Amino acid sequence: MFIRPIFSPLSGLMFILAGAMEIPALFDYFVHNKEWEAFQISAVVTLFTALALYVARDRDSSHFSLKHGYLFTVACWFLLPFFAALPFYWSTQEMTFTDAIFETISGLTTTGATILSGLENLPPGILLWRALLQWIGGIGIVVMAISIFPVLKTGGMQLFKLESSDTAGKVFPRIRDIAIGVFALYSGLTLICALIYFWEGMGIFDAIVHAMTTLSTGGFSTTDQSFAAFPDKGIIWTGSVFMFLGSVPFSLMLFSLKKRQWSLFFMDSQVQVYAAFVFIISLLCGYLYYKEAINLDFFTALTIATFNVISVITTTGYAIGDYSLWGAFAPVLFFFLTFVGGCSGSTAGGIKMFRFHVLWLSCLQQLRKLIYPNGVFLQKIDGKPLSNELSQSVLIYVFMLIISFAIIATSLSFTGLDFITALSGAATALSNVGPGLGSSIGPAGNFQSLPDSAKWILDIAMVLGRLEYVTIIVLLQASFWRY
Amino acid sequence: MFIRPIFSPLSGLMFILAGAMEIPALFDYFVHNKEWEAFQISAVVTLFTALALYVARDRDSSHFSLKHGYLFTVACWFLLPFFAALPFYWSTQEMTFTDAIFETISGLTTTGATILSGLENLPPGILLWRALLQWIGGIGIVVMAISIFPVLKTGGMQLFKLESSDTAGKVFPRIRDIAIGVFALYSGLTLICALIYFWEGMGIFDAIVHAMTTLSTGGFSTTDQSFAAFPDKGIIWTGSVFMFLGSVPFSLMLFSLKKRQWSLFFMDSQVQVYAAFVFIISLLCGYLYYKEAINLDFFTALTIATFNVISVITTTGYAIGDYSLWGAFAPVLFFFLTFVGGCSGSTAGGIKMFRFHVLWLSCLQQLRKLIYPNGVFLQKIDGKPLSNELSQSVLIYVFMLIISFAIIATSLSFTGLDFITALSGAATALSNVGPGLGSSIGPAGNFQSLPDSAKWILDIAMVLGRLEYVTIIVLLQASFWRY
Repeated sequence: MFIRPIFSPLSGLMFILAGAMEIPALFDYFVHNKEWEAFQISAVVTLFTALALYVARDRDSSHFSLKHGYLFTVACWFLLPFFAALPFYWSTQEMTFTDAIFETISGLTTTGATILSGLENLPPGILLWRALLQWIGGIGIVVMAISIFPVLKTGGMQLFKLESSDTAGKVFPRIRDIAIGVFALYSGLTLICALIYFWEGMGIFDAIVHAMTTLSTGGFSTTDQSFAAFPDKGIIWTGSVFMFLGSVPFSLMLFSLKKRQWSLFFMDSQVQVYAAFVFIISLLCGYLYYKEAINLDFFTALTIATFNVISVITTTGYAIGDYSLWGAFAPVLFFFLTFVGGCSGSTAGGIKMFRFHVLWLSCLQQLRKLIYPNGVFLQKIDGKPLSNELSQSVLIYVFMLIISFAIIATSLSFTGLDFITALSGAATALSNVGPGLGSSIGPAGNFQSLPDSAKWILDIAMVLGRLEYVTIIVLLQASFWRY
Repeated sequence: MFIRPIFSPLSGLMFILAGAMEIPALFDYFVHNKEWEAFQISAVVTLFTALALYVARDRDSSHFSLKHGYLFTVACWFLLPFFAALPFYWSTQEMTFTDAIFETISGLTTTGATILSGLENLPPGILLWRALLQWIGGIGIVVMAISIFPVLKTGGMQLFKLESSDTAGKVFPRIRDIAIGVFALYSGLTLICALIYFWEGMGIFDAIVHAMTTLSTGGFSTTDQSFAAFPDKGIIWTGSVFMFLGSVPFSLMLFSLKKRQWSLFFMDSQVQVYAAFVFIISLLCGYLYYKEAINLDFFTALTIATFNVISVITTTGYAIGDYSLWGAFAPVLFFFLTFVGGCSGSTAGGIKMFRFHVLWLSCLQQLRKLIYPNGVFLQKIDGKPLSNELSQSVLIYVFMLIISFAIIATSLSFTGLDFITALSGAATALSNVGPGLGSSIGPAGNFQSLPDSAKWILDIAMVLGRLEYVTIIVLLQASFWRY
């Protein structure tokens, strides 16, 4: 059977998922919350499915080909949510199947769009599970971006191949080592973030939950007010800093840590371009917000503006207040910021900085060639020559993003959503940001009121964005299934 | 002096412009309208400037290089509007300088966005001049697309090189012959269109003006109601057919006419893809409009829907009623249709069909290469192999469009425009369609109420779209000016 080789890694992930369900189960059990049963039953169901897959697995790992790389990646994101959604579905919250799946996909893709309201009154196990979904999703995304995407050459990610001779057969056995490194660093950062939140006055539960959704640039919160519930400037800046850390290249951080050479990190062109971009946009928004708001000193305006800008660019989706009310410029600017994204190999979604860098260099190269047709213009990126293949991969990625955006937004409009909701909904889902714009899905609202059909469309959009389009679209070709 | 070689062709165009001003001047003079003086004075000013340029010209045409090709193309579109706007500025209509320039650029670029209202009461000379601007602009655009863009390799236009050995030095002397052919075909089609309009019941003046703005896919009308003032189904279908004819490749029409072989035209892949796309979207919108509207038979709904769809896709911008009220889907769908555009080498703006075709083939090629890295996949477009250079040119074009769109829309929002006005305004200007969406610039509104700064931003957007981005952006490089 063609798909059998993917059973082994798939069952591994499902064992992890079942184990993760025990955390809220135990937690709810000890705080005497009935909800623990939902988690326990879900864990058992997941465990048995994992066992079944494990038994049926293909023992010969050499059967695992490039095609299985694609298949496995896509299967994870379409299959696991159905199991991860079980605790929501079986909980006392009476969530519909559609809502349970939406919340789960939004969690695992670290999008952060929610259909729940009255978060303050939810059982703690549910809040913890939402945070865990984002946190686990975040690790999965980083590992996928570091190890799988470069081999699959997803949208120019071949730029980040660990070794130039890497192939699918070589990389997949090594994923575990990569995952352990990422897990250690990621856990460490989460712990530090939680401690600082706690030290600055957050409750311990809030601190842990928010630390998990900060580092994963997910954005689920424990209150409907999101970060507006924590007006302490220290907490806000901590959030800004750790969201930023969640959106920079993890592999580069790991590498710099190992070599104890932080200059490697700070000299990276992607990190530099990214930091400069965030700095300029934050300052601009801080100034504009300061001018618009009447009773606000500049530092407070800058604090809030920076937090919201970083939240959107890193695709976290926390909000302090409704930034779409800052003046006419804000919805339009935040709409475009939705697409930007963080750096490659991080938990952030969106187009990502290195792609802008590649596109910019490609443009320069092509423009010069137009005037001097016989000139030779070799652009370099991070010391490597900018190949035709690389720039073409990135350009195709952008083209697929636009086509997906047009199709998703138009489909949403057919379910009855208005212009601003349809456009910003499509954008926020594809970039895995979280909140959109407008009265229903804006930073002050949530996704509950959307029709079911719109929620399913957004589910597809979130996964499509997370898998960077190419990975899924490859599967849609007839020639993929010929063998 | 570096720029002197462009004086000679520039003076030629200004002679034509001065001559064109005599048409409304004579017309207004014979209908005893005071306005004729404004046209006469403008003609004299333009004539003298043309003479000055002619005297200062560089007599050695061999000095005309590729760089002059870029410079001349851009200079035309930035210089001529200032002369063509003089009749508006000096007319009895008391238009501000900003408004006069806006109306002129909207005319010459065949955009069709207007700042005038109460068109029914305007002096006929002004109405005639608006139509003439679009008609002349249309010829200019077609000639530019056939002869200049392929040599400048603008956004993949090298696909349409007349002869593979063409260079700037060879093509520019031949432009006159191309222009004469285009002029003859274009005049013939306009005449036929005017006769049919007249025969179907339009007044003779209305028929002539609308024929000129139909073929040029411009969209200026003689009434504020646009085509809703002519509810006759025959007139509406005539409009649909001739807008469509204005948006198909003129060079191909000329060639097929010369060879008397229409199969060449109908077998062209771009024409086929385009016709199929227009057909499907029209049918879809007809059906949806029929379902939404209560007292409308299907054929009437289809007639109106097809007209509006063709009007947007061909970037004409006529409207019958306010299609943005057809239901939630309409604004979003029409927003994306704004970008599509007609075929290359026509008067239509937008991205254009052949680019979608090239991108589609590039995507297929790349996706196959991802699964079979060692396979050789040669895509062909119109019998020619799809080169790397070609697909890259097109991709860069799309990237520049998106960046321009983001910058223009954000700039518009900084002048105070709301989300839907800023986004659709940027889209409609860059694609040279005409009306946007929303209450102020939608199909039922006009551009008068926008702040002056927004009008200037839109001026730049219209020219940028018409010059297909690359042509202008090439000039912004420091290396262009080094010689």
